[in-house]
Amino acid sequence: MKEERIRLGHGSGGLLTSKLIRDVVLRYFDSKILGRLEDAAELPAEKKNLAFTTDSYVVDPIFFPGGDIGKLAICGTINDLAVKGATPKFLSFALIIEEGFPIVDLERILRSATRTAHAARVSVVCGDTKVVDRGKADKIFITTSGIGVIEHNLCTTRIRHGDRIIVSGTIGDHGIAIMNERLKLGLQFKVRSDVASLHGLIRNILRTGSAVHFMRDPTRGGVVSVLNEAIEGMRNGIIISETALPIKKQVRGASEILGLDPLYIANEGKIVAFVEEKKADEVLRIMRAHPLGRRAAMIGEVVGKPVGVWMRTGIGGTHPLMRMEAEGLPRIC
Amino acid sequence: MKEERIRLGHGSGGLLTSKLIRDVVLRYFDSKILGRLEDAAELPAEKKNLAFTTDSYVVDPIFFPGGDIGKLAICGTINDLAVKGATPKFLSFALIIEEGFPIVDLERILRSATRTAHAARVSVVCGDTKVVDRGKADKIFITTSGIGVIEHNLCTTRIRHGDRIIVSGTIGDHGIAIMNERLKLGLQFKVRSDVASLHGLIRNILRTGSAVHFMRDPTRGGVVSVLNEAIEGMRNGIIISETALPIKKQVRGASEILGLDPLYIANEGKIVAFVEEKKADEVLRIMRAHPLGRRAAMIGEVVGKPVGVWMRTGIGGTHPLMRMEAEGLPRIC
Repeated sequence: MKEERIRLGHGSGGLLTSKLIRDVVLRYFDSKILGRLEDAAELPAEKKNLAFTTDSYVVDPIFFPGGDIGKLAICGTINDLAVKGATPKFLSFALIIEEGFPIVDLERILRSATRTAHAARVSVVCGDTKVVDRGKADKIFITTSGIGVIEHNLCTTRIRHGDRIIVSGTIGDHGIAIMNERLKLGLQFKVRSDVASLHGLIRNILRTGSAVHFMRDPTRGGVVSVLNEAIEGMRNGIIISETALPIKKQVRGASEILGLDPLYIANEGKIVAFVEEKKADEVLRIMRAHPLGRRAAMIGEVVGKPVGVWMRTGIGGTHPLMRMEAEGLPRIC
Repeated sequence: MKEERIRLGHGSGGLLTSKLIRDVVLRYFDSKILGRLEDAAELPAEKKNLAFTTDSYVVDPIFFPGGDIGKLAICGTINDLAVKGATPKFLSFALIIEEGFPIVDLERILRSATRTAHAARVSVVCGDTKVVDRGKADKIFITTSGIGVIEHNLCTTRIRHGDRIIVSGTIGDHGIAIMNERLKLGLQFKVRSDVASLHGLIRNILRTGSAVHFMRDPTRGGVVSVLNEAIEGMRNGIIISETALPIKKQVRGASEILGLDPLYIANEGKIVAFVEEKKADEVLRIMRAHPLGRRAAMIGEVVGKPVGVWMRTGIGGTHPLMRMEAEGLPRIC
């Protein structure tokens, strides 16, 4: 049986393109709006402000323990909306495919993307498919954009001295899973990517009202990037406690072998939240009650001085957590 | 002076990424919303329904007579919103860049994209930058998504027997410009791409009220694809007149040399409109009064029989215009 592969003509706008869309793409994305195949989708008016975000996904490898580029593209955009206090509603899904890419792999990616979108109750309403000649792209790239309805006002300007910093679970899982797979490290311990849609977990903690001041998902650049960006330009500092950081034993081990620091490694299913001191225990409890927040931990707090981001180590020292010039892990998402 | 080039670290999410965004990208896109650099942009609520669209651009070459990939990415998404009867408002802009790409070329693309967006009064409110290793992408790919406010209801179901079909200007210019540049045909006659934002032209003709039933921009697959898609599943047919087709002499000449039919060649600054018979002259007049519609022409009409799309030739014959399986021009947009 001949294995079907993507041909340049699949991106030409002719009958081959239509066939690919109808026979392959629409078998998975069954949204009524997408099915109309118009140049633009029509969305109902909303009374509230909207959140709008976009990300391209170029992860290598495209299939990895715990997920694949399709799931990642849906979760990543859902999470960017959710950390903004928005309920994710509509997604676009644009493919750039290398000539020769197996259609069976495309279907596997679409199946995974669809399941993820469906479970999160978001609709993929528009899309695009481009094909480039062999050697001009690496298998498949996906760009998703998302629209959500803003329910809560979260912003770095709401961060206050005394705010507690909570991370929703173990850090570094995604980056280590990718590196283990890419480098064929053959680490005996298996690490799975944490890629997940966080809108449910986030909705639960936002029910506490205005207690959550700001949050972000620590993807490229890891937890340290989020912490540094959060207080950039402010006269406050952050101190986190090394011993409080939730890190899986396998991730710790792999990081040591690779010479990486989990605080700088990408996550795809975690949030870092800045929470009002008095409500921090409650938020932590709510997180831990959710399947995606079981290992949530309070890792630090916002202080008046010193300015900048600092870590108190297990043996009592304090050292700065600067942003890295360039994270050592390209194509992590 | 060392020429600055994109490095893998520019896509890492670390300081190099921030520097690229702040020093390069934000120098062009000056939107206040984008400047906040949040994971998602906040957009004001609208009382009307929204149009949402996405497209990836992989055009080769990235610079061509009449435009470049940056202008194309902005115009293409604006046009997809405008043909849906929407006023384009907000765009996202996601880059996938090959390691080693000259930053001076990136700046040229951003400048062109910015100018185009600014002239159309749309704001680029969110974006993303990913870098892949050398040889894993072809210079630069751009994915734009767009949000517009729907002002007019246009749909294929509104197409009626008797509707006149109007094209807003000469056809085939974009495809021929790209092929001439890519193949280094060295054609003496210069053909420029027609890439342009059509929202202004479209707004003018929609002032005629409900006279315009449906329109689309004939990009990949050309005019024939639009005509076939427009009446797909309907019991009507379309007859167009060969002698009425506006085609530049140079495009006609180049098409003959390349063995291509301008009816199947991509345009990036044209619309095909289905207009109520009684109002067709008025719409044509309005188009011709606009700089982007000077060579607009009535090219055919919707008939009861025969079903399908047909062309009456200059010497009186009638032959079918079937969709091509795969247009002969890959990476035209």
